[in-house]
Amino acid sequence: MSTDATDAKRRHDPGIRGFASDNYAGAHPEILAALALANGGHQSAYGADEYTEHLQRTVRSHFGARAEAYPVFNGTGANVISLQALTDRWGAVVCADSAHIHVDECGAPERVGGLKLLTVPTPDGKLTPELIDREAHGWDDEHRAMPQVVSLTQSTELGTVYTAEEIRAICDHAHERGMKVHLDGARIANAAAALDRPMRAFTNAAGVDVLSLGGTKNGMLFGEAVVVLDPDAVRAMKHLRKLSMQLASKMRFISAQWDALLSGDLWLRNARHSNAMARRLADGVRDVDGVEILYPVQANAVFARLPNEVSERLQKRYRFYFWDEAAGDVRWMCSFDTTEQDVDGFVAALREEMGR
Amino acid sequence: MSTDATDAKRRHDPGIRGFASDNYAGAHPEILAALALANGGHQSAYGADEYTEHLQRTVRSHFGARAEAYPVFNGTGANVISLQALTDRWGAVVCADSAHIHVDECGAPERVGGLKLLTVPTPDGKLTPELIDREAHGWDDEHRAMPQVVSLTQSTELGTVYTAEEIRAICDHAHERGMKVHLDGARIANAAAALDRPMRAFTNAAGVDVLSLGGTKNGMLFGEAVVVLDPDAVRAMKHLRKLSMQLASKMRFISAQWDALLSGDLWLRNARHSNAMARRLADGVRDVDGVEILYPVQANAVFARLPNEVSERLQKRYRFYFWDEAAGDVRWMCSFDTTEQDVDGFVAALREEMGR
Amino acid sequence: MSTDATDAKRRHDPGIRGFASDNYAGAHPEILAALALANGGHQSAYGADEYTEHLQRTVRSHFGARAEAYPVFNGTGANVISLQALTDRWGAVVCADSAHIHVDECGAPERVGGLKLLTVPTPDGKLTPELIDREAHGWDDEHRAMPQVVSLTQSTELGTVYTAEEIRAICDHAHERGMKVHLDGARIANAAAALDRPMRAFTNAAGVDVLSLGGTKNGMLFGEAVVVLDPDAVRAMKHLRKLSMQLASKMRFISAQWDALLSGDLWLRNARHSNAMARRLADGVRDVDGVEILYPVQANAVFARLPNEVSERLQKRYRFYFWDEAAGDVRWMCSFDTTEQDVDGFVAALREEMGR
Amino acid sequence: MSTDATDAKRRHDPGIRGFASDNYAGAHPEILAALALANGGHQSAYGADEYTEHLQRTVRSHFGARAEAYPVFNGTGANVISLQALTDRWGAVVCADSAHIHVDECGAPERVGGLKLLTVPTPDGKLTPELIDREAHGWDDEHRAMPQVVSLTQSTELGTVYTAEEIRAICDHAHERGMKVHLDGARIANAAAALDRPMRAFTNAAGVDVLSLGGTKNGMLFGEAVVVLDPDAVRAMKHLRKLSMQLASKMRFISAQWDALLSGDLWLRNARHSNAMARRLADGVRDVDGVEILYPVQANAVFARLPNEVSERLQKRYRFYFWDEAAGDVRWMCSFDTTEQDVDGFVAALREEMGR
Repeated sequence: MSTDATDAKRRHDPGIRGFASDNYAGAHPEILAALALANGGHQSAYGADEYTEHLQRTVRSHFGARAEAYPVFNGTGANVISLQALTDRWGAVVCADSAHIHVDECGAPERVGGLKLLTVPTPDGKLTPELIDREAHGWDDEHRAMPQVVSLTQSTELGTVYTAEEIRAICDHAHERGMKVHLDGARIANAAAALDRPMRAFTNAAGVDVLSLGGTKNGMLFGEAVVVLDPDAVRAMKHLRKLSMQLASKMRFISAQWDALLSGDLWLRNARHSNAMARRLADGVRDVDGVEILYPVQANAVFARLPNEVSERLQKRYRFYFWDEAAGDVRWMCSFDTTEQDVDGFVAALREEMGR
Repeated sequence: MSTDATDAKRRHDPGIRGFASDNYAGAHPEILAALALANGGHQSAYGADEYTEHLQRTVRSHFGARAEAYPVFNGTGANVISLQALTDRWGAVVCADSAHIHVDECGAPERVGGLKLLTVPTPDGKLTPELIDREAHGWDDEHRAMPQVVSLTQSTELGTVYTAEEIRAICDHAHERGMKVHLDGARIANAAAALDRPMRAFTNAAGVDVLSLGGTKNGMLFGEAVVVLDPDAVRAMKHLRKLSMQLASKMRFISAQWDALLSGDLWLRNARHSNAMARRLADGVRDVDGVEILYPVQANAVFARLPNEVSERLQKRYRFYFWDEAAGDVRWMCSFDTTEQDVDGFVAALREEMGR
Repeated sequence: MSTDATDAKRRHDPGIRGFASDNYAGAHPEILAALALANGGHQSAYGADEYTEHLQRTVRSHFGARAEAYPVFNGTGANVISLQALTDRWGAVVCADSAHIHVDECGAPERVGGLKLLTVPTPDGKLTPELIDREAHGWDDEHRAMPQVVSLTQSTELGTVYTAEEIRAICDHAHERGMKVHLDGARIANAAAALDRPMRAFTNAAGVDVLSLGGTKNGMLFGEAVVVLDPDAVRAMKHLRKLSMQLASKMRFISAQWDALLSGDLWLRNARHSNAMARRLADGVRDVDGVEILYPVQANAVFARLPNEVSERLQKRYRFYFWDEAAGDVRWMCSFDTTEQDVDGFVAALREEMGR
Repeated sequence: MSTDATDAKRRHDPGIRGFASDNYAGAHPEILAALALANGGHQSAYGADEYTEHLQRTVRSHFGARAEAYPVFNGTGANVISLQALTDRWGAVVCADSAHIHVDECGAPERVGGLKLLTVPTPDGKLTPELIDREAHGWDDEHRAMPQVVSLTQSTELGTVYTAEEIRAICDHAHERGMKVHLDGARIANAAAALDRPMRAFTNAAGVDVLSLGGTKNGMLFGEAVVVLDPDAVRAMKHLRKLSMQLASKMRFISAQWDALLSGDLWLRNARHSNAMARRLADGVRDVDGVEILYPVQANAVFARLPNEVSERLQKRYRFYFWDEAAGDVRWMCSFDTTEQDVDGFVAALREEMGR
């Protein structure tokens, strides 16, 4: 074995970017700088450090005086902790059938939380009170897992965005029926940028009880947070985080990233940029004959329908995923580091491949 | 809200170090450098990146051609994934009653894995074939959870170290009875340094099936790994990692740290240093009247018995934990960044407080 | 407190029968007689008794030489044990969205088994290879719970019946894709009577791997059984039954009932009778204007659509349930003890209430 | 297949009784009579029947006006439902290391309930406040599963009996620390008979919150009940019973048995008799040289130490179990149907085998 530390060398080409996912991007330079600043010396482990303490103030500046932030490792962790916090052992969760908790978490809500998901098809990834009512009933019927939470995703898996008023209507509806509301905000910054409103406007102020606050997709190296907006709705969050295997020992390194993202406007700059790149991409694509944009492009995702053979040729030049291969649907994601040149090059390539 | 990125400032005094835990330390500078090198551009998420691919080669250089590394977030995650991989739904795990999985994981093995732990008291944190046999029986008895795994900790929670021969004897014993062996190596580097042998000597070569490889306590910012030593003993590890909520999206940032630690000798330098500091501490303490060292100081932990009031005064000057307050037992941990001055200062302070 | 044993007196009117459910009925007299015969003296507990041993022979006479019967308490228990037996920790189950495991078990599959259910809408409660394919994909994708089992219900929750050929096509399809097949046979006897074929024809012979064999709805006092048709598909069934809290200590009393049901033709007599009563009911109802029969009446259930106010008036005379109140759908179940007079009286009452 | 119902014939010799377990016995004739009386006609399923309604009154006559009975199938079910009812997702249970929930339930508490058991060695199967304190600490420490329940067994697995005062002291101790108390009363009737006090005296009146009330070992065919003594300590019991797969559809047949047992003095007659037989057995054995009685014989169990080869010879004549084969310990259980002749014959046989 070499004893040369320089062996830790760069193994990839930092000039290549694609449209596969916002988590294909690395970390924003200000995030790396914050990690370096937080390093050195000793800090209490497991969240009793000065960075995590300061983060509470930063989070309260966004979400109000009652908000509590629990940094965690990843989005599945944030979601499953949040949902466990809002349910009893007999609880069920109403969500869109496109929700990440249903389609992308390998059954972690069921397996780790023992949660039953009651899914509802939606046209655009967004629930409504009427859609929720398809599954929100039978609270006294012991044969049915008890609907105790509605889980929303903002921005949705389909790149659409709820207005604050839509979320308010859902929260009122849920609360009247004794249910709580969770918001999966893996891309909440993109929603805030799209709505041009503070995050609080469509979370606390709209009645959301617990929030999965997403950082990784918005320029952090790793790390998300459960933000409890209504502390009366939960108990023993620290125990829940620990037993859900999401308690970081050197938590200062998550909290310092969060602080760098949230204490200034980095969170918003990153989100505005990736949204703008998605709009630029959609605008460019709309001019290409034979390519259909599928949903309103409100956040940082563009969904399109085009011939599969074109997509396959294009995938040799740029990384992206099929969303529904049978239908010819693809997803193109923009991230904080997507450049105008990236977008324009991609649109040109698409035009080229469509023309063959 | 300020829009000034410099708001992400250092919030702690990097000159202060204590003896509370090896995870109170930050990250080694070479680790931070590796993160910076891995940043920029796009890399496939969820482990399909070039850093994670290269890590496989590095891990095989330590553990042989069959080893497979699955980077994860933390030690509880690594342990619970490992144990799930080695058990059926009806399985139980034999472990020391001091094991981290039993006393420090808030029931995650039971809650997430549905695992029954069959615990055995030990004099020094180390199991033996005889101790294991107290619980390793009744495989055909459906009233009893079936003992399918023995879980060892190396170095142990009490700072002691199994020899390769001791582990070999346990593995042979377990395998003869149809059980697998898991090794919780949160501090495996300290054990390797203590034994002055490669990790392989007391893992693969001794018969261990799956290993929780610890990085955070040895200078990483965050990150551990499940290392499968016998791939025939497990299946679907990627699914298990995902459903256990331990799959990092930007995995390159765990793998790059691992590579920085393991591809050269950083892992060993760090461990040798923290072990040396613990020996220096123990040597210093042995000269202080009224303080008893409790276990052989083989790794980076020193356990001592002294009057509680002395400990409490000392805790005002240096951070450390009581281990068993009723007995007057304390634990002093050294880490990769502990200095000789730290140790000497601590011993002098102890001497002072004992003398009052 | 009285010391008079006669205090255990009949508290209900044994002359009243309704159409609410086949589990509103009591036990067939031959079942009670079998319990009395099995009483007295000592028998080994937990299944090591002579009745359970003999039951194996009886079950093999129905399902062939490889079949193994594991008596359990109830249908949810039988289903969740079966599904656990056929899945790994990362497994998912494809089922109709009307399946009992999805809508009527309070999340027990998710909670007890950690199972993810992948549900598919069906027109008549019956899956097909095409419907299964909507969810049976992505086996290598760790973000998705792995589809490992298809679960069918025979007869279905909607009173329809799969032909042996339909089940064979599903089993072939599933097996080709590496999945196993579970059949929820809570009303399997009704299906056998409807098809006029032995149970084996549409289970083993069609490729079903594990069967929940239903007794309670067919005249037993209590008790169901997991019948393993392909022992190579499962392991440690006794442990699974025990940890699923379905192991009866005095198991002779379940096995003796099973033997009474299965060793002669009682199972078939009961099922034929309840099916015949459902046909009689459907025939009677078809003559009533304004009442629509909803599905083919193949087993012992009749689903109908009629004005809600009529149903509500009728419910004051006979017990039965709404199936979908918004749509005006009701369910009428017949059981082994339903008489022709019961049916004729009910049809007359329906006609009367419709005419008001 | 025969169509002859008489095929359901007696398959065992009703004249043979042993000392293996109180659940080797069948059902008391009054229990069978009660089942016959409850048969016929239709009754609402899942507990909405008249027998279950009446049972509430009977149970309140024993346990006071606030008591609620939830009939279930078996003791593991009763225990795991009770413990889930008294814990949060992060809860742990303090119990004796001889407790049934720890040693005899195949990990069901961990697997089904996600419960961590914190076990304490005891000299005689009985916990004390001091013993409980070994594990009842660290409520605020998220690294530790939170001790929320103390679970007692009455009479214990070792045939000993807590006095009402001992239970009161434990309940006070637990309640002062914010913990609840569960009592596993699989053999509670034997304890009541031993203490010659009503069950209430050492349950409600002593502070127990939830009780597993045992019927099967005391002459029922099958069936136990969760009895909630403090309804404020629990919620959604019906949902918990259902998701724990312990909800009987034809519940009248459990409730009718319970009523037969509890509405008169059958429960006490049976228990007094089995206790008396155990005393007779112990008295007889005490005269036999070389056989040592191990614990106070307070209920219906006798534990003894004698040469293994004698036990093995004796097992050819009477069924019973080794308790600790290495130590030469055996367990002899008496049941409601054990006769004086059975006991005297057994003692004579023991004497004979000892004399060889």
